[in-house]
Amino acid sequence: MSTLSTINIGICGLGTVGQGVWKHIDSNRVALESRLGVTLNLARASVRDLKKKRTVRVSAGALTLDPLSIATDPSIHIVCELIGGTTLARQVTIAALKAGKTVVSANKALLCKHGPEIFAAARKHGGHFFFEASVAGGIPIIKALREGLVANRFKLIYGILNGTCNYILTRMEREGLSYPVILKEAKELGYAEADEALDVEGWDTAHKASILAFLAHGTWVPTEKMLVEGITQITQADLSFARENGYAIKLLAVITREADTGEVFVRVHPTLIPKTKVLANVNEVYNGISVTGDVVGETVYIGRGAGQDPTASAVISDIADAVILLNRGNTHLPEPVETRASLTPLQRITGRYYLRLEVKDEPGVLAKIASATAGCDVSISSVLQRPSETAGAASLILTTHQANEKAIRATVSRLKRLSSVLGEPVLIRIADFAG
Amino acid sequence: MSTLSTINIGICGLGTVGQGVWKHIDSNRVALESRLGVTLNLARASVRDLKKKRTVRVSAGALTLDPLSIATDPSIHIVCELIGGTTLARQVTIAALKAGKTVVSANKALLCKHGPEIFAAARKHGGHFFFEASVAGGIPIIKALREGLVANRFKLIYGILNGTCNYILTRMEREGLSYPVILKEAKELGYAEADEALDVEGWDTAHKASILAFLAHGTWVPTEKMLVEGITQITQADLSFARENGYAIKLLAVITREADTGEVFVRVHPTLIPKTKVLANVNEVYNGISVTGDVVGETVYIGRGAGQDPTASAVISDIADAVILLNRGNTHLPEPVETRASLTPLQRITGRYYLRLEVKDEPGVLAKIASATAGCDVSISSVLQRPSETAGAASLILTTHQANEKAIRATVSRLKRLSSVLGEPVLIRIADFAG
Repeated sequence: MSTLSTINIGICGLGTVGQGVWKHIDSNRVALESRLGVTLNLARASVRDLKKKRTVRVSAGALTLDPLSIATDPSIHIVCELIGGTTLARQVTIAALKAGKTVVSANKALLCKHGPEIFAAARKHGGHFFFEASVAGGIPIIKALREGLVANRFKLIYGILNGTCNYILTRMEREGLSYPVILKEAKELGYAEADEALDVEGWDTAHKASILAFLAHGTWVPTEKMLVEGITQITQADLSFARENGYAIKLLAVITREADTGEVFVRVHPTLIPKTKVLANVNEVYNGISVTGDVVGETVYIGRGAGQDPTASAVISDIADAVILLNRGNTHLPEPVETRASLTPLQRITGRYYLRLEVKDEPGVLAKIASATAGCDVSISSVLQRPSETAGAASLILTTHQANEKAIRATVSRLKRLSSVLGEPVLIRIADFAG
Repeated sequence: MSTLSTINIGICGLGTVGQGVWKHIDSNRVALESRLGVTLNLARASVRDLKKKRTVRVSAGALTLDPLSIATDPSIHIVCELIGGTTLARQVTIAALKAGKTVVSANKALLCKHGPEIFAAARKHGGHFFFEASVAGGIPIIKALREGLVANRFKLIYGILNGTCNYILTRMEREGLSYPVILKEAKELGYAEADEALDVEGWDTAHKASILAFLAHGTWVPTEKMLVEGITQITQADLSFARENGYAIKLLAVITREADTGEVFVRVHPTLIPKTKVLANVNEVYNGISVTGDVVGETVYIGRGAGQDPTASAVISDIADAVILLNRGNTHLPEPVETRASLTPLQRITGRYYLRLEVKDEPGVLAKIASATAGCDVSISSVLQRPSETAGAASLILTTHQANEKAIRATVSRLKRLSSVLGEPVLIRIADFAG
């Protein structure tokens, strides 16, 4: 087969990440090109505004308003889809794959929503789809799962996959300030989006968990089949309990697979994780992932989960892999074999739980609550009463013995119906799965 | 090119790791073969005793006493060199590479000693040499450095690379027992070799550091050009100081590269590392590596550093990579471009130091010591006097302000010559480099 001596790269979406990719390929060109044995030509880029000032120097002739023209340009070998969203990004990705090109993407939402279609298009037309940057920024976790740990079956993967949530929780914990106050500051500092819902309600983490679950188990778990809860209900009461009892609170994605049944379950929720675990000490915008394989045991990966430079690092590593593949013939990559695993039923998702309730400060309340939990087969391990910020109310913190998701959900609904319980109970999982 | 549907694997050295590889390929065969699209045939294995009982079932016809017969067998595609040592292992490796085969190795000493010869033989005859298992067991750190972080230049890599030392230090710290007591128990439990020198004196760590430095910087730093110190002098006095001042003591490999000069330096020594750093909390037989890239920032990798299963996990991932390569034509892998970097002179290796001296318990000692250190341009930051186990002696713990390796070495020689200083001063670096 013929070997390409120049690789033409098209960048669709020259925003923060796109400019980072351009900048770092330029600044590290000598080392990259000598390692890969090719010339890397940043040939074209699409933008939304041709006139906008950018931090990288791109000739006017290389710029276009139309990303699809890059996706279908016969001279382009590798298309980087860095547009974001799932509409135009999908059109660009599918068009490039249909043209037999290799696509490098940082787009977790796209992959989570259209993964099967994307991989099918890559297979059908002999192209490839790389997505290291879609999960955990610069941490090479996709490569670790797909290649480095290929000997393993993964009974447990859990991780901090959203830097915004981790930043907010870290600052709440360190400074004793409330969620709304820290969120506001995080927005001003650019650590949270203007519309923060995707991050703080857990959906961004869920998208990434879906990708990790596919890599590990070959099955796509749609986010609506997951348990997804965010961090918006976490207060200083919860963080105090955590601190006093040797825990940190982290928003975790948890992917489990039952060895006997092969059932898979994916969940995203705030979690009380013992401070003795490494991930309890992964703070600020850092991400961390614990991967337990049946052969290797537990391995942990930590790094910055987002931002221009870490994401660019991942995109460039995908470009390097794509170059090697392009010059080595279009045989198939060792993708996970797609299966359709069953999901573990909620009765078999077990653990210990932390429940915080605002209750009327009156006699007999605890008896009613204890009776409600017992009626759902949930057994209480500890009860703490704390002052509430609401007059005439008290804050009640319960922890349970082992219970299952179905029972705890029934418990929460029943508690909500009690007239002594004010507002929404706050439920936090205790990370027994973390050993 | 033709695609192989069956890959014949020969295992030279069916010891602990070899049997682990055999066992896990067998038990995970369905998933591995479907991912790789080939049949994996464990065709032959060499042993030192044909009659010995093994935990894996190998047909008598597949066994041989002669590993070289496997290395040169035309039917074998991938040779796993798991013999250990650097004599027969080198013969087997070079013979297999000369026959154009791909070699997978867990042998850090071999690679450290004969790396240039091995890579040259692989290049010349169109084979490949894989060595993920040579550093940090099951952690895919070789792949991370070579592929996942290819966009980066690495100003700092540091890590815990020897499980035996980490196990001993962890138990000393937790149980308050002395080095000889814990070493004896570690030997009985199989966590330390009968001859422990290679581990506890830092040479095993140095071999691994040499491999990481080559991957990161393309230059082979022989161990005699490194600073290598082990853990045999560490006592409870040092661990107490560490605990009281917010540090852990870890045997670290530290690889630095100066951005301006390109100079590289590799060192291995016990280190006071702040408990706030993740690696300070990596305990027992676990390894951990911090890699700081100019693009990605700091990333950290943690996992079991040795043992049958983690090492087998790494060997099997190399076999998988080799299979893909075999079926994709023999183009070159993106190896580091070999350079001959200068080493940073000792005057520019700076940091803070901890010095523990046994001194005569008499007036005027501190004045003599302070004068000796000042004469070497080393400035003292703190002095603590502690009771010594020796009658008539005291234990003196100094920490310094920023100083350089040349000055601290001169200081230690000068202090040793003082009649008030008894025995060998114990020097521990304080991990300022860890930020």
